[in-house]
Amino acid sequence: MANIIGLMAARNAMAGVDLRQEGVDAMPQPLRFYASDQVHTCHHKAMNLLGLGKKSLCKIPSDDAFRMDMGALKAQIRADCDQGIKPACVIATAGTTNTGSIDDLSAIADLCAAEGLWMHIDGCIGALIVLAPRHRHLVTGIARADSLALDLHKGLQAPFDVGCTLVRDRRQHRITFAEDAEYLQKMSRGIAAAEFLHDYSLDTTRGFRALKIWMMIKEHGAQKFGRLIDQGIAQAQYLTGLIADQPLLDQMAPTVIDIVCFRFNPGGRDEAALRELNTEIMLRMQETGVAAVSDTTVKGRHCLRVAICNHRTRRMDLDLLVQEVLRIGSDLLATPIAAESGGR
Amino acid sequence: MANIIGLMAARNAMAGVDLRQEGVDAMPQPLRFYASDQVHTCHHKAMNLLGLGKKSLCKIPSDDAFRMDMGALKAQIRADCDQGIKPACVIATAGTTNTGSIDDLSAIADLCAAEGLWMHIDGCIGALIVLAPRHRHLVTGIARADSLALDLHKGLQAPFDVGCTLVRDRRQHRITFAEDAEYLQKMSRGIAAAEFLHDYSLDTTRGFRALKIWMMIKEHGAQKFGRLIDQGIAQAQYLTGLIADQPLLDQMAPTVIDIVCFRFNPGGRDEAALRELNTEIMLRMQETGVAAVSDTTVKGRHCLRVAICNHRTRRMDLDLLVQEVLRIGSDLLATPIAAESGGR
Repeated sequence: MANIIGLMAARNAMAGVDLRQEGVDAMPQPLRFYASDQVHTCHHKAMNLLGLGKKSLCKIPSDDAFRMDMGALKAQIRADCDQGIKPACVIATAGTTNTGSIDDLSAIADLCAAEGLWMHIDGCIGALIVLAPRHRHLVTGIARADSLALDLHKGLQAPFDVGCTLVRDRRQHRITFAEDAEYLQKMSRGIAAAEFLHDYSLDTTRGFRALKIWMMIKEHGAQKFGRLIDQGIAQAQYLTGLIADQPLLDQMAPTVIDIVCFRFNPGGRDEAALRELNTEIMLRMQETGVAAVSDTTVKGRHCLRVAICNHRTRRMDLDLLVQEVLRIGSDLLATPIAAESGGR
Repeated sequence: MANIIGLMAARNAMAGVDLRQEGVDAMPQPLRFYASDQVHTCHHKAMNLLGLGKKSLCKIPSDDAFRMDMGALKAQIRADCDQGIKPACVIATAGTTNTGSIDDLSAIADLCAAEGLWMHIDGCIGALIVLAPRHRHLVTGIARADSLALDLHKGLQAPFDVGCTLVRDRRQHRITFAEDAEYLQKMSRGIAAAEFLHDYSLDTTRGFRALKIWMMIKEHGAQKFGRLIDQGIAQAQYLTGLIADQPLLDQMAPTVIDIVCFRFNPGGRDEAALRELNTEIMLRMQETGVAAVSDTTVKGRHCLRVAICNHRTRRMDLDLLVQEVLRIGSDLLATPIAAESGGR
């Protein structure tokens, strides 16, 4: 939802028509949004929701570090202009789901400023790295966004859900969402004597989710959360070191933040066999309760995915994780997976 | 949000094109949605969000009982067909915000079946009247909806927010929302061994709001909530009787469910003066804590609005409410409102 709020503001600001009233089919030119091929699928869903269709979201290839290729982005923008398509918005990701990679926010901000595009940052995973003294340089440029989505249930370790959206232009934010209702008239006195929050979002009624965040920050202070983010990234780097020491484990993507992608690879197996093997390792770790490891596929290669987002994680947990991957992997080599047990 | 889920399913089902991929501007014909002039503004916001624009929502006049005029609806559908606009969906309201009126759900269901339209019911206020033995006849036909939005934080008195949407066609529901993500692969084992709820909605992450509802129903049973809804409606009828006994109070709309619209009217004042007078009465009741009465405007006439949605309400509270309206109203007649104190 946090991304939807920002993208709807972007769509309406860039439409070239009163989109609230007239709709997408009244736009003088089709709009194009850009994101890397690592973008979260909630942005596909947003394109569907917003009536733009997934055709309006152009996936820009990512480089070896899983960051949006800026040359490819610029070329696509030029090509779209030539085709009569209006470049509208670049969705930069600060912390991809797959690998934690962070797009070059400053370069994207420069490009958006030069081309007159809306810059939306999906910072659901990584925006709060701004709080972390040892790693905040990773998100340099984040403050230049026109809209920014962040998940306080991730970076701030709050109970979910508590997504959040910041939109730079308050007027644009409000005219995207505000409706006048005869039964909701603003007053200067009485119980409705404040700005209506629903004028800035989709829900008319919503719970007071901000309370838990306010109390967490009052109790602990923002600095502590910054230190915990640094701690998680340091633990991811520690895990990366453990993986490097093990010849049967392959690191599958650079470790940038608190996400680590790797796999068990005894050699001599094709991608399908490695996927089957690592999926079974993941499931057994989940089923035995050793670790809630997930999986993903990066550049066509399946891998295990560790996201260290709980401040109670200790290095010994990561030692155990590596031991168990090796132990289960070795067991599976000795006793191949029965055909009927596959998880997919 | 509950209405948005249903309307998005309706839009995609009726688009005549793969709207997920191609967007609103690829539709062969513009779509039209219909609702009464009493419809909640969240539906305006939904039309904006969905890229259809508010032009796609046709407001059908309501009759003296604030129900959608079926003759006007049929005429509008015919006129739209003649104009090359595709009638897509009728939004029936089961419990309008202004007055609690309930559209003729059976007649609308018949019309939608005959014309091949999607029937969405906004039952956020009134859907749960199906639980109330003495009044469930008011929502006859509700089970024929293609999609139904209800707010369990209203009818079930649960802490907000906990909206809910039912969509009849499970396949249509799923293909409206489901996206495939490499990092969210469904498994038959492990911690992801279940259907993903985000395949049926907009949020990827969401809190377990259903838990409180499940516990409430386990603790109290659905029958008790039905009795409480009957109780609220009976209290609204009691309040309506009190108003009828007071020559200085005018009932402003028929009392159908647990919503009562009335105003203080000492006679000899125009609409603007009555609005000013009743707004001040409302604000003083809010400020003194006597009652959280709101206001609205129906058929151009301002009124106070009482929604009895708390099971702790007693008849003596309603006696006090009427006494205080009369007392504050009389005070204001004796001491006119200072110019600077107006609430707007």
